[in-house]
Amino acid sequence: MTTAFKAATETSELKTVLPNSRRIYINGQQPGVRVPFREIDQNPTRNFKNELEANPPVRVYDTSGPYGDPSIRTDVREGLPQLRREWIIGRGDVEEYEGRSLQPIDDGYLSFEAAQTAREKGRLEDFPTLRRTPLRAKKGACVTQMHYAKRGIITPEMEFIAIRENLGRALECGGLTPLCNDRSSLTHQHRGQSFGASIPSYVTPEFLRDEVARGRTIIPANINHPESEPMIIGRNFLVKINANIGNSAVLSSIDDEVEKMRWSIKCGSDTVMDLSTGKNIHATREWIIRNSPVPIGTVPIYQALEKVGGKAEELTWEIFRDTLIEQAEQGVDYFTIHAGVRLPFIPMTAKRTTGIVSRGGSIMAKWCLAHHEESFLYTRFREICEIMAAYDVSFSLGDGLRPGSIADANDEAQFAELETQGELTKIAWEYDCQVMNEGPGHVPMHLIKENMEKQIEWCGEAPFYTLGPLTTDIAPGYDHITSAIGAAMIGWYGTAMLCYVTPKEHLGLPNKKDVKDGVIAYKIAAHAADLAKGHPGAQYRDNALSKARFEFRWEDQFNLSLDPEVAREYHDETLPQEGAKLAHFCSMCGPHFCSMKITQDVREYAAQKEIDEAAALDVGMKEKAEEFVASGGEIYQTVAAE
Amino acid sequence: MTTAFKAATETSELKTVLPNSRRIYINGQQPGVRVPFREIDQNPTRNFKNELEANPPVRVYDTSGPYGDPSIRTDVREGLPQLRREWIIGRGDVEEYEGRSLQPIDDGYLSFEAAQTAREKGRLEDFPTLRRTPLRAKKGACVTQMHYAKRGIITPEMEFIAIRENLGRALECGGLTPLCNDRSSLTHQHRGQSFGASIPSYVTPEFLRDEVARGRTIIPANINHPESEPMIIGRNFLVKINANIGNSAVLSSIDDEVEKMRWSIKCGSDTVMDLSTGKNIHATREWIIRNSPVPIGTVPIYQALEKVGGKAEELTWEIFRDTLIEQAEQGVDYFTIHAGVRLPFIPMTAKRTTGIVSRGGSIMAKWCLAHHEESFLYTRFREICEIMAAYDVSFSLGDGLRPGSIADANDEAQFAELETQGELTKIAWEYDCQVMNEGPGHVPMHLIKENMEKQIEWCGEAPFYTLGPLTTDIAPGYDHITSAIGAAMIGWYGTAMLCYVTPKEHLGLPNKKDVKDGVIAYKIAAHAADLAKGHPGAQYRDNALSKARFEFRWEDQFNLSLDPEVAREYHDETLPQEGAKLAHFCSMCGPHFCSMKITQDVREYAAQKEIDEAAALDVGMKEKAEEFVASGGEIYQTVAAE
Repeated sequence: MTTAFKAATETSELKTVLPNSRRIYINGQQPGVRVPFREIDQNPTRNFKNELEANPPVRVYDTSGPYGDPSIRTDVREGLPQLRREWIIGRGDVEEYEGRSLQPIDDGYLSFEAAQTAREKGRLEDFPTLRRTPLRAKKGACVTQMHYAKRGIITPEMEFIAIRENLGRALECGGLTPLCNDRSSLTHQHRGQSFGASIPSYVTPEFLRDEVARGRTIIPANINHPESEPMIIGRNFLVKINANIGNSAVLSSIDDEVEKMRWSIKCGSDTVMDLSTGKNIHATREWIIRNSPVPIGTVPIYQALEKVGGKAEELTWEIFRDTLIEQAEQGVDYFTIHAGVRLPFIPMTAKRTTGIVSRGGSIMAKWCLAHHEESFLYTRFREICEIMAAYDVSFSLGDGLRPGSIADANDEAQFAELETQGELTKIAWEYDCQVMNEGPGHVPMHLIKENMEKQIEWCGEAPFYTLGPLTTDIAPGYDHITSAIGAAMIGWYGTAMLCYVTPKEHLGLPNKKDVKDGVIAYKIAAHAADLAKGHPGAQYRDNALSKARFEFRWEDQFNLSLDPEVAREYHDETLPQEGAKLAHFCSMCGPHFCSMKITQDVREYAAQKEIDEAAALDVGMKEKAEEFVASGGEIYQTVAAE
Repeated sequence: MTTAFKAATETSELKTVLPNSRRIYINGQQPGVRVPFREIDQNPTRNFKNELEANPPVRVYDTSGPYGDPSIRTDVREGLPQLRREWIIGRGDVEEYEGRSLQPIDDGYLSFEAAQTAREKGRLEDFPTLRRTPLRAKKGACVTQMHYAKRGIITPEMEFIAIRENLGRALECGGLTPLCNDRSSLTHQHRGQSFGASIPSYVTPEFLRDEVARGRTIIPANINHPESEPMIIGRNFLVKINANIGNSAVLSSIDDEVEKMRWSIKCGSDTVMDLSTGKNIHATREWIIRNSPVPIGTVPIYQALEKVGGKAEELTWEIFRDTLIEQAEQGVDYFTIHAGVRLPFIPMTAKRTTGIVSRGGSIMAKWCLAHHEESFLYTRFREICEIMAAYDVSFSLGDGLRPGSIADANDEAQFAELETQGELTKIAWEYDCQVMNEGPGHVPMHLIKENMEKQIEWCGEAPFYTLGPLTTDIAPGYDHITSAIGAAMIGWYGTAMLCYVTPKEHLGLPNKKDVKDGVIAYKIAAHAADLAKGHPGAQYRDNALSKARFEFRWEDQFNLSLDPEVAREYHDETLPQEGAKLAHFCSMCGPHFCSMKITQDVREYAAQKEIDEAAALDVGMKEKAEEFVASGGEIYQTVAAE
């Protein structure tokens, strides 16, 4: 046997639950609806009277799946529990069938012998239960969440997501809704600006169903990926992020990719795209899907191209169609399909600085020119819809002509394709297929909003899913930052999911550290967007962290942050002693000179003097100083009184 | 003697000129006006006919001063050449005078003996030529750049800056101005959106003079800091960034701080603030100023507080005034003065989540409450103006009540202070003092614009200088990113200078790596803002880098980037072989599957077929394919033809 999967098994690094955190579940009404959250416990506040006051735990959205529950034993060779299996079977509209036979070329081998040799040499390892029997819709049935939604059915998936999006808040819990005016309250939140989104103060399953039915949101949930925990992508919900992984001809192994998937979701990625392009594509994907609690996306044309030896002009509809079915049977939840790259648009890119930079887009452009024929993705689009509907694979309509440089932003080619994405979106909806649209790319800040506005208008409010955008080209090595700026802004304007960019973008293949840096930068962008949109409850975590910071509860500040380990490590670099984490001063300024300490002193001083706020405001200046000192005053409430 | 300054002398790391770069100078009309730039040479493009075509060098703004010129020998013990000395003396309005005597307390020692002991033990080292004779305005004279500007004088400083801001472009060189429509051209630039700024296509000295006279821009240039290279801060010029350094009671030495200053300006920081708070404040500052080619800012109240043993209530106007003069004589170019923190505003912070987080603000709040008296910074403001005018120290009116959390953004206290900053700005202008205003802090994206709009309205278009703002509180360890988002946006809206935030913000004292990470994040934010505002020529570097990227000129891509070393290092991690940097494929995708390679193939294919673009657009689909192949076609121009 091989030595693969040394890392993806029960390693301590991945299995460790985040500090001071507990996994909790909230049950729904329908059987099996049991929604995971992470609750971060806090230390009590010590007020100025030296009394301890409890701080409530903070509940956060949790993408880590069974890996985040210490009571669940996971084994990469067994895959995850099939959470959704009974829901899917229970609807009575699917059938098991023999499925497509695995071909050596699926993994890039030209013969069964070559594949067997790779297995024997430990270069290829199949997932042990590879020959599952796949499911598909019964003849005449449609199994998409949109189909159910249009018929008024609230699926268990929808109920699961409603609870998840509310972070488990009960309907009557108005406390987490915006517009509490007391800024010292944990539940205070600014009124947002959402540019016409319809964000409810509380997500009911019925609201969610209606959004799915209208196509304003999607639930990527292939019936052959029952291991996935339902999640939603739409403008009226929390902004989501995606992490790209995938091996290439140059580097990377199956093991590394499974590890990166787990690493991504530990850091908070909502979906993962497997963009593998080298050998062992099929096997890699199988390992990833069977072990993934988040939806998996792919770009099927990549694998199709491998099957024709990398020669774009040799691609055929039949090979592509076969690849779609292969991947749908495995359980891929959404497919990027570049059906908007039409022959007449290709010459529009000739005067660009960076031509066509999308891999899928350039493959199809090459095919179109070689055959001087309209793209088969476009001409066969209705046939593609039928396949997608049979497995509930969601469309991610690719932006093959996205700008690859600031110079090329918002040009004719880009917008011609976007308009076509809109046309295709409406066709897909005829088949009750779920659809999102991919967007750029490289765009200077002032041209970002136009992308969002046109997408909403042309694509009927289908969710937008953008790569960044990068707001300048001049910082390779730091493109997680150049793009987090654009991502936060376009998320605010209405983009539903942000595809991360790592520091290695344009330079190399991301390693685990790069994946983490990319995910954290995008969690920041998504959360900044949620705050700006005024998503109910979004500010609660900021409030809790800032309260902890102000009260010198260092451990709580670390634990409430997006990356507790790095926060602690940075603090310890300056003040390594354990006692420093209990210190009432901050590490920037030292024990005698910290603004937060001074503010606390000010409050304390005022509290001791027991003068009320009104007196301090009303009394005069100099001539009243003695009176102030004599009578005391409470300019500040103590922290405890909040 | 001590072992200090091991690092700040001629270390290879700091002295190394960036790869493929040359220092050039452009001379002005006035004597001594010799403006430095860095020119990055590029390799030629190899076109599809295998011919070499030259690429022009790219000229960039250079903050590194004499350190960036290999022909200038620098010695930290001698300080930098006094570039501006003759200009200052030549105006005939300054006088040398004895100056204030150095006190042991200036460095935090209670007696001459204690200071001497520190010297002997190597804990304190004075700058060798410490007892320079300072300059000040002659009685009745005013020596501020604003004063000259109001009188119609174009100083050498102004001419220097005009050349610098134009990146050395000549007036007739319209090529670098916006709105060239050919996106493949290096000079193509998008029309910007500048929210009412008045950015000229070419900066004339007269335009610049008028902006200084109107108070819309400042030139921080203390007459006692002749080593500094003139630069400008204003909404109609390139967006600038500041890096904070400074020792504290907890950590850090003089040596480290000089090193950090040099490190900051190598990475591109336009000004540096010395926020030292521990011992040796005076000596540290002297070393920094004498070796700094960029303006230095400080917060004098920090040192004043040290002089009274950290007890805010013991501060007096006399101690503060003495500190202002001490620092003005040393050559500090701008002072943060929190004169807007007025007694009546302090109770407005009582209900905040994080009270007062500005150090200067909390010191003054404590003083005001202790004395129940209006802040002496406010009541003595006109006296402060007189001191500032005598040395041309610019005001940076502090925002002592800035929000320290998302919850506290844009509240009553913050805006009460901002309005007062506006009132004080106008008073300072009566004295021909140069003024900028400091701004927040922590602000969610949708509340950022209001800050800029109110500042412009209330502060008479004086330059805005903001700290971030951070767009969420939940990512300690990554606040260079949370804040780069806000900084890019507020820079776009009109902020003239962005104060960096490092990854250590809220957690610890930044080390050299943190300083670099902060500076690069802010160079990104500032440049993204320049692009969005449509600053003429800003897109040139993006265009050049993207062209290099598209043509697989890896070395040029690295060299044109903000951080050539990191870009190269990341590339080499994936493809370490030297040959890979000549390869016509990108490291993400491997040799057979790269979108840029495919696009090049598409262009090549099209070029070979020699069909013209019009034909490709006009001819039909399938039935015209043979014609297409037969006649050939030029769908794409070759790269070479650009």
